[in-house]
Amino acid sequence: MNITSKTSAASPLRVVVIGGGFGGLETARKLRKSPVQVTLIDRRNFHLFQPLLYQVATAGLSPANIATPLRYIVRRQKNCEVLLADVTGFDPDRRRVILRDGEITYDILVLAAGASHSYFGHDEWAPLAPGLKTIEQATEIRRRIFMAFEMAERASDPQVRQELLTFAIIGGGPTGVELAGALAEIAHHTLTHDFRHINPNEARIMLIEAGPSVLGPYPPALRDRAAEKIRSLGIEILTEHRVIDIQPGEITIQSGDATVRLRTRTVLWGAGVQANPLAKGLAEATGVEIDRAGRITVQPDLTIANHRDIFVIGDIACCMDAHGKPLPGLAPVAMQQGQFVARQIASLVHGRAPEPAFHYRDPGTMATIGRSMAVAQIGQRQFCGYFAWLLWLFVHLMQIVQFENRLLVLLQWMWNYVTHNRSARLITQVPEEPAGTQTDQH
Amino acid sequence: MNITSKTSAASPLRVVVIGGGFGGLETARKLRKSPVQVTLIDRRNFHLFQPLLYQVATAGLSPANIATPLRYIVRRQKNCEVLLADVTGFDPDRRRVILRDGEITYDILVLAAGASHSYFGHDEWAPLAPGLKTIEQATEIRRRIFMAFEMAERASDPQVRQELLTFAIIGGGPTGVELAGALAEIAHHTLTHDFRHINPNEARIMLIEAGPSVLGPYPPALRDRAAEKIRSLGIEILTEHRVIDIQPGEITIQSGDATVRLRTRTVLWGAGVQANPLAKGLAEATGVEIDRAGRITVQPDLTIANHRDIFVIGDIACCMDAHGKPLPGLAPVAMQQGQFVARQIASLVHGRAPEPAFHYRDPGTMATIGRSMAVAQIGQRQFCGYFAWLLWLFVHLMQIVQFENRLLVLLQWMWNYVTHNRSARLITQVPEEPAGTQTDQH
Repeated sequence: MNITSKTSAASPLRVVVIGGGFGGLETARKLRKSPVQVTLIDRRNFHLFQPLLYQVATAGLSPANIATPLRYIVRRQKNCEVLLADVTGFDPDRRRVILRDGEITYDILVLAAGASHSYFGHDEWAPLAPGLKTIEQATEIRRRIFMAFEMAERASDPQVRQELLTFAIIGGGPTGVELAGALAEIAHHTLTHDFRHINPNEARIMLIEAGPSVLGPYPPALRDRAAEKIRSLGIEILTEHRVIDIQPGEITIQSGDATVRLRTRTVLWGAGVQANPLAKGLAEATGVEIDRAGRITVQPDLTIANHRDIFVIGDIACCMDAHGKPLPGLAPVAMQQGQFVARQIASLVHGRAPEPAFHYRDPGTMATIGRSMAVAQIGQRQFCGYFAWLLWLFVHLMQIVQFENRLLVLLQWMWNYVTHNRSARLITQVPEEPAGTQTDQH
Repeated sequence: MNITSKTSAASPLRVVVIGGGFGGLETARKLRKSPVQVTLIDRRNFHLFQPLLYQVATAGLSPANIATPLRYIVRRQKNCEVLLADVTGFDPDRRRVILRDGEITYDILVLAAGASHSYFGHDEWAPLAPGLKTIEQATEIRRRIFMAFEMAERASDPQVRQELLTFAIIGGGPTGVELAGALAEIAHHTLTHDFRHINPNEARIMLIEAGPSVLGPYPPALRDRAAEKIRSLGIEILTEHRVIDIQPGEITIQSGDATVRLRTRTVLWGAGVQANPLAKGLAEATGVEIDRAGRITVQPDLTIANHRDIFVIGDIACCMDAHGKPLPGLAPVAMQQGQFVARQIASLVHGRAPEPAFHYRDPGTMATIGRSMAVAQIGQRQFCGYFAWLLWLFVHLMQIVQFENRLLVLLQWMWNYVTHNRSARLITQVPEEPAGTQTDQH
């Protein structure tokens, strides 16, 4: 296969990008001035700003505030078209992507299909402990959180009430910490005056982490201060506790040889990452390796072995840094990879020499713990507390694609900060009564 | 039954209000200074500002912008508690409301459970032509509208593409007119630059009304001008056309003796009103009459025959005006009835004489047709065009319960007006791939 075969032809190089997340969208946008024809494929019609998804799950923001239609983003980019379609497989020999209802030819393929949660071989836990990767999961978590308080208000049995007011969050990474912090604010502030029979303040929020500390990849000093801050919000941290079973109303956790059963009606999942199953499809079609998390092992230039016309980027790729460690599944990694791939493709069409390898420039990492509280590491500097929180606010606000959404998010954050309110606390899509069949009481 | 029996006792009068819509919420709030104990029951945890629901269906606003948690609204009202519960029946002899999971005793019952759509005996049409009464229905309509454009973009058959770009709205009342107007703006402005294979401008939008004109209850001059404005937006109006069948991909409409089949993939329902089935339950329990729309016939003082302890208000009530005509199903009617009932209850507990009859003071009615265009009737005055539209904006903005939501709605309206954008155009809850089971491509 010779990927330069098309460049001399009259029709432009066809670049197919799978996935409209941070990596795929960045690739497509950075190709806007290149003489190529870009097709951006996604199952969903919007780009989701996942770092703020926990705010949808905790009623601080509305789904549309953190989602922007892909078509809107590239509406003026004449060399890009958006295809709402479901990719089911690959035919690398014929350079085709197989869709559920057709196929599409590429000269260059960029796979940026992301990842979802891993239940470590226990997929039966998924309905009992929803993860936080999609809008639907966020509104489902929101429903469960607020429904638990509603049911506790009506529970006559103190034991049942306690179970309803116990929230277990599995995984002490940024998602788990952010969820726990927001949940603590809901229980201790937002709902203070709302109930007549329960005291939301009595809610028990547990953050359960299998490793030795929360926010594992952060420097030890920052981790310790974060843990201290988390505890100060009334959240219980259980480190070195591994979840070994989840049943309706109960989880079993193990620490060393001891196992503990914990009664809880709300379990949220923030642990483990599993690459999109398309990685497996591509591996089968090309013979490339996948790692334990199902990610595709890429070459230093983000192509895959023996297929220089296929790039794999973002959470679905396993890309090593200079020290031979895999790069983390973060938005900046995916975006820089997208920029790199766009540059490589531009070099190709202009006959310039491509760069030999992708290098990640770490802009720093940060996680928010709660109101006025975050931790950040930028270069060798570590920040904790109010300044880190302002930094977190600013960085996240500025990264939101659409100016209108930036304004809406800022307004709601200011409002939530001043009033402690979270106005998006709607319980919708009640499963036992699907929309359309219900009569309403309004 | 003697409803004054409790007033001399130590415990306060128990008022149970069913439904947190305009009527029920107004009753509960206006009782805040009365020595009564109010229980506000709803199946949903929020009050929905239904007049703007069509803006959620057409991606102009987010659900949370027009919904406010009931608990939040009455959080400071010590004599009111909110109960998230499903009412299944009534036991008027024992003064109990039967819930799905229990029962509750009342001294005074206020039934304000609202209405949903009527398919005129064709309930099988509901999944093919969703109505617009709940948040879930609004997001489902939004999904169908934007999915139709997405599928048209991918359709290779011109006939199929035409069917996908044909939108039929059944019912020429305010809801139908507002939906059609917003849909015209989406097709002609919002999506202009978004697609590569279709021209959204070619969308065919049809407003189908069985009666002789759109906006039936308005004065003839206003109706005619409204129809003219609607047509100027490129919407086809078919009056005196009755829908006699809806099948997937096709509707059959009848005008006089002629029937026409129309190929369309998107049918929206804005016709007919059917009272909440609880009306039937109360009628069976008390022997009171219900009308053809399933509404309960009330006495002039909004109680029901032989049960002076049961008030019925809002869309579930059939209440005659001074001329013997039933009052329309509008928010101002329900709210004034709620205020009246609260006054009656206050009179009762304070031993004052109750008012003999409810009188509706018509504040006027208005409907928006589209950008900068509305019709309004206030007293004898009629308005049409830009001024009526500003009036419509102002009145609706001011009626939104929560100040934060007022700001958010105002901001989004300004934004949408200037940019022609509608940023909430998310296709969510795709039925064939329920949340939680899907992996995502971000």
